Amino acid sequence: MKKQATSVLILYNKTRKAILIKNILIHPLKGVKKMDAMEAILSRRSVRKYNKKSLSDKDIKELLEAAMSAPSAGNQQPWHFILIDDPEILGKIPTFHKHAHMLRDASIAILVCGDLNLEKHKGMWVQDCSAATQNILLAVRAKGLGAVWLGIYPREERLEGMKNLTKIPENVIPFSLISIGDPAEKQGKVNRYDDSRIHHNTW
Amino acid sequence: MKKQATSVLILYNKTRKAILIKNILIHPLKGVKKMDAMEAILSRRSVRKYNKKSLSDKDIKELLEAAMSAPSAGNQQPWHFILIDDPEILGKIPTFHKHAHMLRDASIAILVCGDLNLEKHKGMWVQDCSAATQNILLAVRAKGLGAVWLGIYPREERLEGMKNLTKIPENVIPFSLISIGDPAEKQGKVNRYDDSRIHHNTW
Repeated sequence: MKKQATSVLILYNKTRKAILIKNILIHPLKGVKKMDAMEAILSRRSVRKYNKKSLSDKDIKELLEAAMSAPSAGNQQPWHFILIDDPEILGKIPTFHKHAHMLRDASIAILVCGDLNLEKHKGMWVQDCSAATQNILLAVRAKGLGAVWLGIYPREERLEGMKNLTKIPENVIPFSLISIGDPAEKQGKVNRYDDSRIHHNTW
Repeated sequence: MKKQATSVLILYNKTRKAILIKNILIHPLKGVKKMDAMEAILSRRSVRKYNKKSLSDKDIKELLEAAMSAPSAGNQQPWHFILIDDPEILGKIPTFHKHAHMLRDASIAILVCGDLNLEKHKGMWVQDCSAATQNILLAVRAKGLGAVWLGIYPREERLEGMKNLTKIPENVIPFSLISIGDPAEKQGKVNRYDDSRIHHNTW
């Protein structure tokens, strides 16, 4: 990857208005950025500090499109998404979720939920909702935003807290809460590759 | 997204050797392709038909780097990966997994496993392994390869089958099997966005 980065540092389009810097394509249309998929995957980090700034409706919609493009067992798509930007609701979540303090500065949070009534392949909804959550995190990274995955399921006190706050029906399970904002801390690659975790054909 | 695609159809670098076509950056170094992250997320589809072709060691390593860059609860990284390319092993899997026939034509399969001994945050390993699985699927897409996520956990017969074939120790659970190959069918965007799944602050 390093070899490539040096050789594609800057690309110009015909009108010299779009440039590619270190795999991030800055698009001539205002505010639109692109990022190489591998770069987004390898450089996504949990971001817990944000600048006060609201997200555009377009960005929010694209995050949800990313979520709903996730694979699911038999394409069952057993998910719902609650967009939370009410400061009162965001402020209450840390009272029952000890790792959720950053929500007080978040632009928005997305609660990914699994609907058991939509599940055709029993026991698979957790995997489906995880894939949707990961897609949102990567889309956030690609947009130059920052996010962190807060686990809700299967912690009893968090499940109860989220259900009460958001008035979710009985058949729906709050799964993960994604805190999103304009990043006030850096993301970037760290090498987590570990040869000892890889096996060939048998253990 | 359509608006952008038309306006960045082709970008040239200084030496006019790298071009960007419909968000796919064809790099001057032989065989290296880049894909915009949102494009990869939105256009990834399950691919079950492959051309006979083996993957390069570099590609396989990058898929594993993508997997190990996934977020996990408290950064516990509770995963192991078994690379399966032995045709005898691949050929046996469809005897206990009815959706796994494509493995006979796959270049390689990656079995993502959860190691309960590595789990610091109980009950979270399934989510961590799902995120790693989704990262592999997206990296596959970004590389122009094709893959499908075959569920193993929590189906008893599949768990037993995979454990016996790959000689996995007791504390390790075979979670998902990713069948990968050179795609002989098309991937592309389908619109799964569904407004009825979105709620604002409360249900």
